[in-house]
Amino acid sequence: MKTIDLNCDMGESFGAYKLGMDDEVIQYITSANIACGWHAGDPLVMDTTVKMAVERGVGVGAHPGYPDLLGFGRRNMDCTPNEIRKYLVCQIGALEAVCKVNGTVLRHVKPHGALYLTAVENEDVARAIAEAIVSVDSGLMFVALAGAKGKLMTRIGQDVGLKVVYEAFPDRAYTPEGTLVSRRLPGAVIKDPQAVSERALRMAKEGNVVAVDGSSIPLKVQTLCVHGDTPTAVDLVKNIRETLEAEGVSLAPMSA
Amino acid sequence: MKTIDLNCDMGESFGAYKLGMDDEVIQYITSANIACGWHAGDPLVMDTTVKMAVERGVGVGAHPGYPDLLGFGRRNMDCTPNEIRKYLVCQIGALEAVCKVNGTVLRHVKPHGALYLTAVENEDVARAIAEAIVSVDSGLMFVALAGAKGKLMTRIGQDVGLKVVYEAFPDRAYTPEGTLVSRRLPGAVIKDPQAVSERALRMAKEGNVVAVDGSSIPLKVQTLCVHGDTPTAVDLVKNIRETLEAEGVSLAPMSA
Amino acid sequence: MKTIDLNCDMGESFGAYKLGMDDEVIQYITSANIACGWHAGDPLVMDTTVKMAVERGVGVGAHPGYPDLLGFGRRNMDCTPNEIRKYLVCQIGALEAVCKVNGTVLRHVKPHGALYLTAVENEDVARAIAEAIVSVDSGLMFVALAGAKGKLMTRIGQDVGLKVVYEAFPDRAYTPEGTLVSRRLPGAVIKDPQAVSERALRMAKEGNVVAVDGSSIPLKVQTLCVHGDTPTAVDLVKNIRETLEAEGVSLAPMSA
Amino acid sequence: MKTIDLNCDMGESFGAYKLGMDDEVIQYITSANIACGWHAGDPLVMDTTVKMAVERGVGVGAHPGYPDLLGFGRRNMDCTPNEIRKYLVCQIGALEAVCKVNGTVLRHVKPHGALYLTAVENEDVARAIAEAIVSVDSGLMFVALAGAKGKLMTRIGQDVGLKVVYEAFPDRAYTPEGTLVSRRLPGAVIKDPQAVSERALRMAKEGNVVAVDGSSIPLKVQTLCVHGDTPTAVDLVKNIRETLEAEGVSLAPMSA
Repeated sequence: MKTIDLNCDMGESFGAYKLGMDDEVIQYITSANIACGWHAGDPLVMDTTVKMAVERGVGVGAHPGYPDLLGFGRRNMDCTPNEIRKYLVCQIGALEAVCKVNGTVLRHVKPHGALYLTAVENEDVARAIAEAIVSVDSGLMFVALAGAKGKLMTRIGQDVGLKVVYEAFPDRAYTPEGTLVSRRLPGAVIKDPQAVSERALRMAKEGNVVAVDGSSIPLKVQTLCVHGDTPTAVDLVKNIRETLEAEGVSLAPMSA
Repeated sequence: MKTIDLNCDMGESFGAYKLGMDDEVIQYITSANIACGWHAGDPLVMDTTVKMAVERGVGVGAHPGYPDLLGFGRRNMDCTPNEIRKYLVCQIGALEAVCKVNGTVLRHVKPHGALYLTAVENEDVARAIAEAIVSVDSGLMFVALAGAKGKLMTRIGQDVGLKVVYEAFPDRAYTPEGTLVSRRLPGAVIKDPQAVSERALRMAKEGNVVAVDGSSIPLKVQTLCVHGDTPTAVDLVKNIRETLEAEGVSLAPMSA
Repeated sequence: MKTIDLNCDMGESFGAYKLGMDDEVIQYITSANIACGWHAGDPLVMDTTVKMAVERGVGVGAHPGYPDLLGFGRRNMDCTPNEIRKYLVCQIGALEAVCKVNGTVLRHVKPHGALYLTAVENEDVARAIAEAIVSVDSGLMFVALAGAKGKLMTRIGQDVGLKVVYEAFPDRAYTPEGTLVSRRLPGAVIKDPQAVSERALRMAKEGNVVAVDGSSIPLKVQTLCVHGDTPTAVDLVKNIRETLEAEGVSLAPMSA
Repeated sequence: MKTIDLNCDMGESFGAYKLGMDDEVIQYITSANIACGWHAGDPLVMDTTVKMAVERGVGVGAHPGYPDLLGFGRRNMDCTPNEIRKYLVCQIGALEAVCKVNGTVLRHVKPHGALYLTAVENEDVARAIAEAIVSVDSGLMFVALAGAKGKLMTRIGQDVGLKVVYEAFPDRAYTPEGTLVSRRLPGAVIKDPQAVSERALRMAKEGNVVAVDGSSIPLKVQTLCVHGDTPTAVDLVKNIRETLEAEGVSLAPMSA
């Protein structure tokens, strides 16, 4: 029987500001990437989100980002590898303490936004992230982009001794080379719920994805990234989950 | 043979801003209270400061404060006990990770500035701090004010199961009741280096202090707070250390 | 014919975080208190909100607060009068520039949250706010609490030479002494839309309010504070506006 | 008689953090570029610095930067032109209010750090800065890099209708093409005080600079950038000033 993980960014609220439908989406996912208070999140939100994950048996991961609350960590910043390493140690450490206080342990780390996108392209940044993770806890899983485009990131994760978990995006179009179609191009994001659920199923069950040219390309995937920011997004996650379960795919927090 | 600890606030620089003479004062102290990036400090400074402490055999402690970089944590903020608890879990957790990365462990926690002063007076705040500490690691020592004034803080620390370390201030005048003379009053801060060193010696060796009325009052003390923000302050610490050692007092990181 | 102003806090979103239904409530109000980027708001939000106000003929005011984004300016902070003065000069100045860029002028200032509440009680804080306003532009109107409780704030505003605009809260219960019933007490906030609209009408048309003991007390009012944070709140504002207009009360931006 | 301006970045302290020797360097300069609280500075520092400038007859300018206090505005951030425009309107507006409160007016704007360096290379960023300035006050002078490398920035400043002031760096080596030698290359920064003063004199009096190959290249210059961050830097400024005055060059705040 095939097993897959559904991961979702969570805990992105801040003070009086509420973002995301965490209460809803938590019912359908198996891993939560929790913001650590730098680009989003705050200690109360972190605590509430970890508690929620524990209650639901959802795996807890850290979702560290650039020090840019105003830009929500979505803007690239020319941080040095050393800065990135140190920033991540503190972000992961803060969430680890929140986990401990709530009787659980941190399981994985997935960089957020611009930090993730830069890590895909930039060896120094990818290495800084991986080194930070392994320095805090070598047992932490490192979520990296599946497919051709993710090779740099995954190789570096393995180099430093981390267990790498391959992530795919069921709502994103893939090129025949197995990389994501740029968001700037039409059709990059797939919106039809049925199509997205079928893609998720194919990724989970058969380990492949239909590219934009109709070809089927292999894609080794252990976790699927889903979203919980709108009611439509939450419905989509529910649909994905139900489709996977109906087709005999088991759902469980990522493991490596 | 008597043993005492000299503790000093460190790691208060931030980004391009340098504060304190950490490189100098580290030679003379035995415990460092390291800012955790909220009222002062940043991940690079935290890392550098922990490294420095490890190299010198200085005990590492967390020095958490209010979320007020602009006010350096010196202004009171009406945070709820729940907010304080969660803020401290994250601050302590971040520094614990920095310790781990540098092959050491966190040993103590001493609240900073307005948070410390409020904890001395306010049971809810003192309890929130103590609960945060114990929830992260019940083996952490809690630095609390020695003497009459510190009774609330120390009792609460003990209530929650923490080892409490009594702190005194050799450069501060004490009332006959064993409390600090308010900084607003003349003579509250003692500036003569010889007098300060003699007071430190008396605190360490005899467990008492001469109050403003000339009476000698008992004061159970395990750590003496010193400062490293100016060349004069550093000279004073050096003088205290040399006086203590010359008089047969042993210096070692706090323990309880 | 009686004229009244409806003022509402706006521009409280921040980066990716959306707060308040500004697009909706702007249709019904006549003055906007716009956050200045310290406790809420950011330059893009300030610009969008000022543009929206200009398009609708809504009067633009500054809504400065404490430097506490995490606490949304709702927690008291022990800032000195000098700090408050300087913080407000910068907040008001930033919004004035946004006004200028959008071809309008700033008309009023209303302190936000904990800063407002402290100003009601604390002469030094009230004076610091008033002095900051007059130092930037003596033509700015100062929004202060109407009734017995607001006397300190209004007197100080007038002392420094500001035009003071009296504000009342149609959804809040008043004591027979003409002060707001504490939010901690039951019945402090009136939720029945019809009752709130009737109170607004009475405040606007007759200059009085029915206190919790049933007595009618005089209340000199030039602006009514309304809220736009939920669909229910927006409906309430619509109801207030329609009631006022149906009863012959004219609505216009505050003036003094 | 030749006239030149000496400009220096000032007001870069923040809260408890002191940076720069403003009290010293203010004696020798004629224009101050004052940080606006985003990458450095705070409202109290802004006020103190403006007061100091007014007392000394030093021209006041704004020194806006990226929203990155932790990185001191020295790291590039992928902000959109719209974000840059709005951020600068607020920064300039805040300082304008501080000027007004202190009975003076803002005269110029010089972008800080990474924002300046990006503006030199990137047309969209340069235009966003220039548009922000002109939108707040078309009478403000825009400080831009003199020489070949500064052509983009100066052309855009003139395009939008600003008076552009050409800035040169007496302590920096220039290529035969009239651009700054990269800081990464040896000899990029000239440290000999006499050499720097002579270069300043040559820039001010003859409008040229000796390039690294010994050739003399023309350089139209209206303001010389100097530094006040160390005692050595301040001595250098004093030396420059005395050299200029001894050689009959008049010093005055920039004008255009």
